[in-house]
Amino acid sequence: MRFAIGVDLGGTNLRIAAVSEAGELLEKITTATRAATGPDAVIGEMAAAIEEIAAKFRSTGALLGVGIGVAGIIDARTGTLRESPNLPGWNDYPVRAEIERRLKAAVVLENDANAAAAGEAWRGAARHFDSMCMITLGTGVGGGLIFQGRVWQGMTGMAGELGHICINPKGPRCGCGAAGCVEQYASATAVVRMAREAIASQGAPRLAEAASEDAEFNARVVHNLAVQGDQGAQEIFRTVGWALGVLLADLVNALNMPVYVIGGGVSNAWASFAPAMFEELKQRSFVYGATAPEDIVAASSGDASAAWKPPASGTSPRTLVTRALLGPDAGLYGAARLAMLLYGGTSLR
Amino acid sequence: MRFAIGVDLGGTNLRIAAVSEAGELLEKITTATRAATGPDAVIGEMAAAIEEIAAKFRSTGALLGVGIGVAGIIDARTGTLRESPNLPGWNDYPVRAEIERRLKAAVVLENDANAAAAGEAWRGAARHFDSMCMITLGTGVGGGLIFQGRVWQGMTGMAGELGHICINPKGPRCGCGAAGCVEQYASATAVVRMAREAIASQGAPRLAEAASEDAEFNARVVHNLAVQGDQGAQEIFRTVGWALGVLLADLVNALNMPVYVIGGGVSNAWASFAPAMFEELKQRSFVYGATAPEDIVAASSGDASAAWKPPASGTSPRTLVTRALLGPDAGLYGAARLAMLLYGGTSLR
Repeated sequence: MRFAIGVDLGGTNLRIAAVSEAGELLEKITTATRAATGPDAVIGEMAAAIEEIAAKFRSTGALLGVGIGVAGIIDARTGTLRESPNLPGWNDYPVRAEIERRLKAAVVLENDANAAAAGEAWRGAARHFDSMCMITLGTGVGGGLIFQGRVWQGMTGMAGELGHICINPKGPRCGCGAAGCVEQYASATAVVRMAREAIASQGAPRLAEAASEDAEFNARVVHNLAVQGDQGAQEIFRTVGWALGVLLADLVNALNMPVYVIGGGVSNAWASFAPAMFEELKQRSFVYGATAPEDIVAASSGDASAAWKPPASGTSPRTLVTRALLGPDAGLYGAARLAMLLYGGTSLR
Repeated sequence: MRFAIGVDLGGTNLRIAAVSEAGELLEKITTATRAATGPDAVIGEMAAAIEEIAAKFRSTGALLGVGIGVAGIIDARTGTLRESPNLPGWNDYPVRAEIERRLKAAVVLENDANAAAAGEAWRGAARHFDSMCMITLGTGVGGGLIFQGRVWQGMTGMAGELGHICINPKGPRCGCGAAGCVEQYASATAVVRMAREAIASQGAPRLAEAASEDAEFNARVVHNLAVQGDQGAQEIFRTVGWALGVLLADLVNALNMPVYVIGGGVSNAWASFAPAMFEELKQRSFVYGATAPEDIVAASSGDASAAWKPPASGTSPRTLVTRALLGPDAGLYGAARLAMLLYGGTSLR
């Protein structure tokens, strides 16, 4: 058995998994990222944890390498983390070199959304396809592009920053310096901001109540209210859907991918935002219009990949927009798979 | 000598060239597209013209194939023209099969902007790069994406419709059915519409004068006024630049390409729109900010590719935004090159 280690280095949690070449998740551990201790200490703990989990499988298998997904801007060429919103003090930190030095194993450093894209392409919602586009809705909005079995990293490893596509040039300021990025409408952070705006305008009594009762007022709370029928909360997820529809229309027109996968925590609110998303997408993208599937996706649980079949002979393939399948494990699968590809593989699938 | 034929099938002109494998344009002919006679007659004339030009070089060379670029939506799989704004009555016309049947030569059908992208990648402004993004500013706005030496056609051949990326969700209606597409701000058609809007608002006396004097009031006339210092006309090209800056920010964030090439007739107004374009791009794209070159491009003639050098060891590569070099011949070079690639080539370069 050959296996690789996948790592998801977040600002809060450090998650590490051993994944077999056949695609089985052998073991997974989660520990806190003690970000305040600084990069050297965190890297030391990460190396020890990788060593520990790898040791368990070394007697029966061969470690192919280690893949690390991290939220932030990486330099793929040098394997450094240029900048991460969740890891202050890591600027230009040579993650790849530090882990390779400690473990004597080959390391791949990737952006977390690219790793999630690789995971969904290998074992998840895009498993039937060679090319795909991933959109992750978390604290921010991330993205990953896979063309013909390979992650498209771009010139310097920064490709796939889909959360900073502009959907409204006069929209809210974004942390990236621009305005009206889709991240300002479809991230967990944006859901909370929109809820607070609704509360401030005095038009959302149940949201106001929830915010005053719950010290950890977050996107999940807003979603629960939407599910319970609160119109103020539902309106927020319609805005999320609208924003994703505009984004998807841009992406479908530009890329004509066979499949677009939406993951990240906010994608749990699929049923609350998908109808508005598909409506906007249909209106805005003539490429989608020319390749649109039946409407089952919007109405269902969102897993359109389960029912997918190759197009019948003589019929045109259709554009699929679907939910991610692997949840928070997508990045672990993907990071591990990217490490496996170091050894001559040519496709994620 | 081996050569191919490149064809640019437009609604007004039919242009045909023989191009050698070494990249020399051997001969070029231009005739009117008699669109009113219908597809069969036009295809017949095209086949005769291709035969005529190919005959001249057959004694000394081998014809590798024929590449045809056409404005419109093609189905790459079947070689049919699904729909073209300039060729009414051609819906689902099997261009590839009809030309192959008449000429007994291998034919490639491509969208005109993809063909232009291939030309600029082979012999033009992107000749130093494996991957590139092309934006064509003509009657409409088109685009083409090349990844690692291959045109990205997408699932059904519709990839690269960059003119229909939304830059203002509440902007003017677009012919595609959406609103606020960049085509509504940066095409020749949009320049004229914006000029007429300025005239209607009574704030553009020189534009009004020009429109009343010139039966063929077009984007070139507006550009001439801008060059002469007319503020109303200059404002229109600032809007063109703003729109292209928003578009480029989206593309740079999503794709992190090494080079973006802007061609088509409106790119002749480079000096009038480039300053606003670069200003907006810098403000809106943190990926561009992290990889931005010096400001020479905005100030110069726009041909940044002439001065390009590989990045020095240890320095990061930079994002280039530059004018196209081949003018209207880009599509002829590109279509011919795509036909050459039928014979086992793996890269446009």
